[in-house]
Amino acid sequence: MRFISFESPSGPGWGACRDQGIVDLSLLAPSLRKALAAGVLPASPVALPAGTRTWKTGEVKLLTPLPDATRFFCIGLNYAAHREEADRRPTAQPVVFVRYAASLVGDRQPLLAPPESETYDFEGELAVIIGRPGRRIAEADALEHVGGYACFMDGSIREFQMQTSQYTPGKNFDRSGAFGPCLVTADEIGDPNAGLRLQTRLNGERVQDATTDLMLFPVPSLIAYISTFTVLQPGDVIATGTPGGVGFARKPPLYMRPGDRIEVEIERVGLLANPVQADAG
Amino acid sequence: MRFISFESPSGPGWGACRDQGIVDLSLLAPSLRKALAAGVLPASPVALPAGTRTWKTGEVKLLTPLPDATRFFCIGLNYAAHREEADRRPTAQPVVFVRYAASLVGDRQPLLAPPESETYDFEGELAVIIGRPGRRIAEADALEHVGGYACFMDGSIREFQMQTSQYTPGKNFDRSGAFGPCLVTADEIGDPNAGLRLQTRLNGERVQDATTDLMLFPVPSLIAYISTFTVLQPGDVIATGTPGGVGFARKPPLYMRPGDRIEVEIERVGLLANPVQADAG
Repeated sequence: MRFISFESPSGPGWGACRDQGIVDLSLLAPSLRKALAAGVLPASPVALPAGTRTWKTGEVKLLTPLPDATRFFCIGLNYAAHREEADRRPTAQPVVFVRYAASLVGDRQPLLAPPESETYDFEGELAVIIGRPGRRIAEADALEHVGGYACFMDGSIREFQMQTSQYTPGKNFDRSGAFGPCLVTADEIGDPNAGLRLQTRLNGERVQDATTDLMLFPVPSLIAYISTFTVLQPGDVIATGTPGGVGFARKPPLYMRPGDRIEVEIERVGLLANPVQADAG
Repeated sequence: MRFISFESPSGPGWGACRDQGIVDLSLLAPSLRKALAAGVLPASPVALPAGTRTWKTGEVKLLTPLPDATRFFCIGLNYAAHREEADRRPTAQPVVFVRYAASLVGDRQPLLAPPESETYDFEGELAVIIGRPGRRIAEADALEHVGGYACFMDGSIREFQMQTSQYTPGKNFDRSGAFGPCLVTADEIGDPNAGLRLQTRLNGERVQDATTDLMLFPVPSLIAYISTFTVLQPGDVIATGTPGGVGFARKPPLYMRPGDRIEVEIERVGLLANPVQADAG
């Protein structure tokens, strides 16, 4: 099943993605995150309530799957090709930094290129959405805690990311990243590291192309590590890191500019596509 | 004025701290953060609604001033003595890392020393609470955006902080830091960098003692910088960094252990005191 959040003429809502449109499920829970936490997501199309309103995609503004999520744990340098192009040494533990929700937009919504920098870079990633809470989760049990998956564009203002040792500013410009289009439930994916193909395209040109079996720390390892320090909660998101091919490592560098279109497509997960606009400031 | 959040027998609430107890103001807004955002904080004791319930401190469990806050921007290496003891080079911009709310407890609540590490360190800090939203705020206007101040104990599991380049894990163990006791409104403090004395005491012994005029990036500079990348929102918190004297830089190192008591006291802001317990795991 695929679920999405949106802003409709009646206000914020969420629903199930079907061929005929988005089946509004807002009556089941105030948000998709809360539905996930309460365990009330319909498990199959036949379980969808009959007679509920269906929105055509064009009638609503798509939001990230979890507009009320507060915790995005982002993993750095989790593919060897990217670690090498970034000229960083291997680490025995995952590199974890943080994005706040204000830095993310949903599918088809404009990303903002800030006027403060010309170094706005793309990073396509697989996002893991926690469905069941847990602390100190063993790797063997980790996938039982996953509620679903989505695509993630970890847009990075490189100049600000590298101003000090900590990535926070360059990873948290408002509306500089994207997350979506849908939450695809875990049962549709199975093993997230079984070589799902991940591609990033800038203006239609393929700039990243890898498979998820190449993660240095696979999803169970990330869940085990993060849950060492905090109770992972339903709606928490782990962005699993980007493969090689990012813009800053190219010669010459390749950055995003207003008018561009960036796409992240992951096999069986979906296509996240966003235009880039200038932030008027 | 001083405001606090708490859990009472009637549920979560917030109110004004008075000599006779906590005047419950929960009817004005669902939380102190929302009251700050809505601009409905009473400006003086005479503006407090008459006849409202007053809680004695012992009747409630103190929470952080903003239990529903989601963004804690923490500043690293913002005092020369701490930067030098940590053996780090100066930076032209502030070092910004992030804590999530789950890592923080209110005044008097037990901090948890995790079983995974023996390197649980203290860091006393001044916290700034945003009261008025703004983006790309000029330094000259920055203090107009401050709603108040509080004490902050940026408890750090050093071993996890230093596992990779990014501090996130070591700064985000659940219930490893403290924030409180109250939000003291900005009018009571005036210039936050006018040499307020900040002391940290471990088991009654003074381990940090400095004044806020020693910040390398004073509060207006921090607000200007962070608001470059995001709209600062009411209830956002900036922890302004710790002075010299932290445990890991001592010879021999001095870490917190179960049974300890850690206090952060800042002139005119208050005293934040917490016992340390073992996290049963």
